[in-house]
Amino acid sequence: MKGCILARHPAARLIDLTHEVLAHWPAEAGFWLARSYGWFPPGTVHVAVVDPGVGTARDIVLLASRGHLLLAPDNGLLSPVKQSDAAAVAWRLTAQGMIRCGIGRASATFHGRDIFAPLAAELAAGRLTPEQVGEPIAELVPSWLDEPIVTEDRITGAIVTIDHFGNLITNIDSGTLASFREPLVYAGNRSLVLRRTYGDCRPGVALALVNSFGVIEIAVAEGRAAEVLGLSRGAPVVVRDGLRRR
Amino acid sequence: MKGCILARHPAARLIDLTHEVLAHWPAEAGFWLARSYGWFPPGTVHVAVVDPGVGTARDIVLLASRGHLLLAPDNGLLSPVKQSDAAAVAWRLTAQGMIRCGIGRASATFHGRDIFAPLAAELAAGRLTPEQVGEPIAELVPSWLDEPIVTEDRITGAIVTIDHFGNLITNIDSGTLASFREPLVYAGNRSLVLRRTYGDCRPGVALALVNSFGVIEIAVAEGRAAEVLGLSRGAPVVVRDGLRRR
Amino acid sequence: MKGCILARHPAARLIDLTHEVLAHWPAEAGFWLARSYGWFPPGTVHVAVVDPGVGTARDIVLLASRGHLLLAPDNGLLSPVKQSDAAAVAWRLTAQGMIRCGIGRASATFHGRDIFAPLAAELAAGRLTPEQVGEPIAELVPSWLDEPIVTEDRITGAIVTIDHFGNLITNIDSGTLASFREPLVYAGNRSLVLRRTYGDCRPGVALALVNSFGVIEIAVAEGRAAEVLGLSRGAPVVVRDGLRRR
Repeated sequence: MKGCILARHPAARLIDLTHEVLAHWPAEAGFWLARSYGWFPPGTVHVAVVDPGVGTARDIVLLASRGHLLLAPDNGLLSPVKQSDAAAVAWRLTAQGMIRCGIGRASATFHGRDIFAPLAAELAAGRLTPEQVGEPIAELVPSWLDEPIVTEDRITGAIVTIDHFGNLITNIDSGTLASFREPLVYAGNRSLVLRRTYGDCRPGVALALVNSFGVIEIAVAEGRAAEVLGLSRGAPVVVRDGLRRR
Repeated sequence: MKGCILARHPAARLIDLTHEVLAHWPAEAGFWLARSYGWFPPGTVHVAVVDPGVGTARDIVLLASRGHLLLAPDNGLLSPVKQSDAAAVAWRLTAQGMIRCGIGRASATFHGRDIFAPLAAELAAGRLTPEQVGEPIAELVPSWLDEPIVTEDRITGAIVTIDHFGNLITNIDSGTLASFREPLVYAGNRSLVLRRTYGDCRPGVALALVNSFGVIEIAVAEGRAAEVLGLSRGAPVVVRDGLRRR
Repeated sequence: MKGCILARHPAARLIDLTHEVLAHWPAEAGFWLARSYGWFPPGTVHVAVVDPGVGTARDIVLLASRGHLLLAPDNGLLSPVKQSDAAAVAWRLTAQGMIRCGIGRASATFHGRDIFAPLAAELAAGRLTPEQVGEPIAELVPSWLDEPIVTEDRITGAIVTIDHFGNLITNIDSGTLASFREPLVYAGNRSLVLRRTYGDCRPGVALALVNSFGVIEIAVAEGRAAEVLGLSRGAPVVVRDGLRRR
């Protein structure tokens, strides 16, 4: 993919966001993309290819949001970005767009190299616009992971990713519990009070916190929460208001 | 290595092709290099250092092929490239070439940093040519992995690499079975018909296909073939013509 | 972090030195940094964030050494660099420096993105100097790993890192055993003579050598010493003079 991009757009700057997301589960890649793209310079073209349907009839979508352009299979990966930005605009890559992009025969198994890379290069180089390669669409395929269920005194979400340190990161945005006076986080067989940072607990102690991406995270100070708590992607996490509960 | 390259050639663009090849087995690195280098822009200098003989008497070779320049230990790594291009030209790095390159004392254990990096930098910067640092050689050390044996109704190859998804990738080029009417792929205790893409099977089902690098690949839809089939590098793979066999 | 750096300093060149150091143990990152930074071009800004105390009261330090600038938490990570360079100059990042750098509210858990990245970008872009963001300090927090104990006939050090090949790399600088006539390296239940390179032994045989970073390394030819010898970070390694011992 990088060779293809540079062959078309030699001045491109290439950054790997992550290769450590689960294969075949677009929800995790979509989480990282939605929570990270805003930190890159406006004008960045973000390519995300978690694509169990490669070579089948699924569409390829382009999404313009907050000055960024995001490309992905239409399999739910981009819906967290779209959901976070009411002004986001989406297109579906058309056969005409592929011709305009000079994409001839694509393999059936590596669209990253054969479609996404040339498309991203032409868009990043400014030689093509989304309007020239796609037709507008109103809806994207929804995410494979439901948004958290929020009621007055209870939020039910799930672990969506595990970082390099074994921290369990949920899809529960801290904004949803703004009115909670004493949030208690339930995960596995633990109930955890919210801390400010890892160093607020002794090494080995489990804690919850609002992390640097604005979501509830479950960690073990200087340890690996995923192993200590025996939890992984998809496991439910509930936040309740400790004061309201009494 | 990257620091050394940038110290000599600050404008160099550095791309990591892969660090996931087996250590001490040049055949796997050679496969990826041969199947990938053509996707990079002409003028690219490719450096591949899988080098069990570092510090011993093995040569260092330069290979010019299709507008690219490839550097590697002379241990079979580059022979798949040379075999694919009858017009490729090879040189052996000479002591005089090392002096011209300003390479003084090299460590006995990290030629990547001490020889390959400065050499690649000078060549990529255009300050030296292969002719100035090497002497022509006609032959390279052959690959550690034999080319497939091709007969009229049967091809016998091997698994040469396993990708990020656990797919088993063979050294059997799809061109060798062009005359087969109904190719059947035998690997482990399975016989598999050729599919077009992963999504043509239900999740969990094993399949074979011609992959995006033009070779036979054995996969499990949305699964890891290496684990499911219990096969790894070196395992034999046979393709027969199902119609001819009857 | 990379997005933040590029947003402030679009021309920045970004190189990953390693992500394979142990989490929460600054000694290993400090070893690699001290033994590697000199290979990068002068003017490089090196950022190293192994930071178990993120969000707590630990300082952030800047260290100028041999034309390079190094940034890290003040947790011992940079002390190997300082120890290697008597002329190195250190500063502590001040609140005033953070304001000058345009760092507003930092998260309590990701100073890499919220403090180190913007600081590195401004320094690398030449828009700020260490003097403008820090106040001089004389001492850094010492390393979590003691320097080797050197006596006339015996050096006692430790394994500080394990490389991609499973080689066990110690903190014993080869300079300290310059007067040894026949160095014998003791690690686990082995005593090993010094070899020049891996290829000087048959595959599978354990050996010691002075590696390309100038320290004692324990390896298994074409194998993984960490698994074969059952040793890891922190394990003691002793070098004695075989001739003197008799």
